[in-house]
Amino acid sequence: MHFTLAELAKRVGGRVEGDGSVRIERVMPLDEAGPSDVSFFANRRYAAAFAATRAGAVIVGEGEQAAAGRTLLRAPDAYLAFAKVSTLFHPPRESVPEVSSRASIAPGARVDPSAEVKDFAFVGADASVGARTILFPGVVIGEGARVGDDCILYPNVVVRERCIVGNRCILQPGSVVGGDGFGFAFDMVGDGSGPRHYKVPQSGIAELEDDVELGANTCVDRATLGRTVVRRGAKIDDLVMLAHNVDFGPLSLAAAQVGISGSTKVGMGVILGGQVGLVGHLDIGDGARLGAQSGVMNDIPAGETYSGSPAGPHRDWLRELGAVHQLPLLIKRVRELEKAMKKLQEDE
Amino acid sequence: MHFTLAELAKRVGGRVEGDGSVRIERVMPLDEAGPSDVSFFANRRYAAAFAATRAGAVIVGEGEQAAAGRTLLRAPDAYLAFAKVSTLFHPPRESVPEVSSRASIAPGARVDPSAEVKDFAFVGADASVGARTILFPGVVIGEGARVGDDCILYPNVVVRERCIVGNRCILQPGSVVGGDGFGFAFDMVGDGSGPRHYKVPQSGIAELEDDVELGANTCVDRATLGRTVVRRGAKIDDLVMLAHNVDFGPLSLAAAQVGISGSTKVGMGVILGGQVGLVGHLDIGDGARLGAQSGVMNDIPAGETYSGSPAGPHRDWLRELGAVHQLPLLIKRVRELEKAMKKLQEDE
Amino acid sequence: MHFTLAELAKRVGGRVEGDGSVRIERVMPLDEAGPSDVSFFANRRYAAAFAATRAGAVIVGEGEQAAAGRTLLRAPDAYLAFAKVSTLFHPPRESVPEVSSRASIAPGARVDPSAEVKDFAFVGADASVGARTILFPGVVIGEGARVGDDCILYPNVVVRERCIVGNRCILQPGSVVGGDGFGFAFDMVGDGSGPRHYKVPQSGIAELEDDVELGANTCVDRATLGRTVVRRGAKIDDLVMLAHNVDFGPLSLAAAQVGISGSTKVGMGVILGGQVGLVGHLDIGDGARLGAQSGVMNDIPAGETYSGSPAGPHRDWLRELGAVHQLPLLIKRVRELEKAMKKLQEDE
Repeated sequence: MHFTLAELAKRVGGRVEGDGSVRIERVMPLDEAGPSDVSFFANRRYAAAFAATRAGAVIVGEGEQAAAGRTLLRAPDAYLAFAKVSTLFHPPRESVPEVSSRASIAPGARVDPSAEVKDFAFVGADASVGARTILFPGVVIGEGARVGDDCILYPNVVVRERCIVGNRCILQPGSVVGGDGFGFAFDMVGDGSGPRHYKVPQSGIAELEDDVELGANTCVDRATLGRTVVRRGAKIDDLVMLAHNVDFGPLSLAAAQVGISGSTKVGMGVILGGQVGLVGHLDIGDGARLGAQSGVMNDIPAGETYSGSPAGPHRDWLRELGAVHQLPLLIKRVRELEKAMKKLQEDE
Repeated sequence: MHFTLAELAKRVGGRVEGDGSVRIERVMPLDEAGPSDVSFFANRRYAAAFAATRAGAVIVGEGEQAAAGRTLLRAPDAYLAFAKVSTLFHPPRESVPEVSSRASIAPGARVDPSAEVKDFAFVGADASVGARTILFPGVVIGEGARVGDDCILYPNVVVRERCIVGNRCILQPGSVVGGDGFGFAFDMVGDGSGPRHYKVPQSGIAELEDDVELGANTCVDRATLGRTVVRRGAKIDDLVMLAHNVDFGPLSLAAAQVGISGSTKVGMGVILGGQVGLVGHLDIGDGARLGAQSGVMNDIPAGETYSGSPAGPHRDWLRELGAVHQLPLLIKRVRELEKAMKKLQEDE
Repeated sequence: MHFTLAELAKRVGGRVEGDGSVRIERVMPLDEAGPSDVSFFANRRYAAAFAATRAGAVIVGEGEQAAAGRTLLRAPDAYLAFAKVSTLFHPPRESVPEVSSRASIAPGARVDPSAEVKDFAFVGADASVGARTILFPGVVIGEGARVGDDCILYPNVVVRERCIVGNRCILQPGSVVGGDGFGFAFDMVGDGSGPRHYKVPQSGIAELEDDVELGANTCVDRATLGRTVVRRGAKIDDLVMLAHNVDFGPLSLAAAQVGISGSTKVGMGVILGGQVGLVGHLDIGDGARLGAQSGVMNDIPAGETYSGSPAGPHRDWLRELGAVHQLPLLIKRVRELEKAMKKLQEDE
């Protein structure tokens, strides 16, 4: 597979600076690229690699400076242009319509004829699998669950009974949709054998709307009543946990190991850094951003950036961090003041 | 399925205020409930929804105020009563005694005739599966492992060799019982090829006692020697990690993403908030509570609430947090004092 | 299986103090050991158990004091000697050369005749599995992936397409090698249906070099371009997340629930405590150590110990923690000073 640089520029809405006829065969990192490769430069941390690269062409943003003679593909957003160029070289895997004889399709299940179901995948009774969707080995679709069109469910993904996966969703290996929410009512009396945690039925479902991606081993629990929902276009990284009745907003992002407690509502276009934790029953406003490892105990207004644990406005957090760094010295200064004060008082 | 409100009240030990003959067909959240639904009100955050609900009846606690004319099911503990009512409408799935011809039962394994073993489930040599237990697709029971009666092992659960799962345990999808503990002895000499981490055999087991629940993709590692144990009635949320030789006490709770290091002993009725981390070889006293994201480096006395990282008594943590918020201002005040002091000293 | 104590000492490079002819049948913890058992003592926390043990012999380090009459196996490193003794009693499981008829080996896949492939394991087209390697039930090896010799892949491990696993690697249940990295370019225009997160192809691979161990449900994502690599002899605990293009150094250790963001490079012999988080594009120097739960936002020089979130040098962190504990009192002291100052100023 190969393209001229001019073809690539045309396809991704950019323009060439230099020789548009250069033949591009691969997409490579700056430090590994050669004359037939296109690379990209979008993070200043890699300026030296950009200066030194042997790449045949480099994708850069509009404002970017480059050495004279460097062949460039300029685009309004270098990273987006790179993503589109890379997609031309690495198109998504297409389904090969076939249900393996070693897969298991329960009575009443509907698998679209264009879907691909690999060995040891299981589709439960009355479940449905949409057009061109791929179920890799070990995928388990529970009774009555629905998986839409053009999805990829990687090996060992589980979608439990009655849950819903929209169209064009990608579920990385081992992710779980619809495990029971964590709900127990303490029962001091029990049934004669002492206190117990009485299990609250988790009779709701989990639903992923269209264009959602879940990372490896991520868990979206089913609702106590109603549904847990991940809205259209949201993207979630590995090992994330969304508890029962969470409402995760459209186009929002959660980095790895985020945990969101029950019934919390995350707005549109929110960005949660890695290992962020949110307690339950919160409202996180549209476009809010949370720094990595922050611990959120209160609602967050739309558009705000919060950090820390417990989380506060990012600017306050920075100021307090700076102040804490001065604290050992501050203690000395107070001691000096106390001495001076004592001396003054004695003199008086 | 339907009940009169009076029947429900009788079954869960509550009493009706209003018309006990109302026919209840579903359990629904306050904001979605209609005249044939019962809902519940136990969290003040939802007072407006309680006031506005169209539910045929609402389960409330003893002290709760309600608008005149509202039909109520009053119980000493509204949440527990709700859980019991919900269980009447959503009884746990019962096993359908059958071992699928596409499951794999190794020689010497004993599967109770009343158990249900689905396609692609695997039971290793000399393992046993108790009465009415359900193994969903992709479950793997290792050699010589024992799973008790009335358990549900959801898809892709792994119980490794020789481990033990008690009765009435529920293992959510992807949870792992008996992975190797993380034990390595640094070997500077190695076997001729330089330094290495020498693997310490993890020859012990992991055991879940009766009535334990594990969340999705949660990991309970096997012991180096002896056993890692989760004691009766303990409930553990998703993506939690219990290291080798942890002893997790009866009726204790761990929220999502908790991590407990090796040989730490957690007492009875302990509550660990989300993302809490405990170092190894600690004793956490009965009834202790740990705030979300706390990092515990020392033993905790029974009944205490700790927060922060490193964790301290909750009240101290709150006081210190409050003090840190004042710190930027405090620095200014000290600077003012220093100026004033300098002036006084010059005047003197 | 049994050994005399003298045989054990010889095998592990230690020496006997007392009766070398004592017959040892098991390795047991101090508090459970009897006259035919060997135990070990390496953590002072267990001094009382050491004093009280009924073990036939105890493995101890060179400098360790012991009660008169105690039979000892002395070695330069007690924990390493224990590990080696335990390995004699619990040798690793050897493969039983056989591909189950219920496993699935795709056309073009190469499985060494000495490998063991259990029921419901899947090896994709053009993938390879090395000599004496064991694939437990539910393991999925993607197209063109390569797994080396003498590996153990426990149940439900996934190695996605084209990824590489070296020799003597151990992958605990549910671990995932080569899930897609979390890469999206924000596309304000979209394809006519509004803004979207455009998926950046993750066309690289993930590679584990020789002697790597991954814990249960740990995730090593594939690279955007090039490779994510875990270098020789590194050991990683449960529920850890390594993002795309991470380079995790030889002999480095990551405790449970660590998360490392994209393109971060971790040097040789680094130790990361539990729940540590690292942002992307960092350099962590050889031999660095990070305290549990630290949050790392900057490069760390070789050999340094850092703690806290955001992480700083461990000593600074300790000093600041101590200062914060004094802070509520400091605020009072400043208030006293202000009062005294006011009085002095009025007197003046």
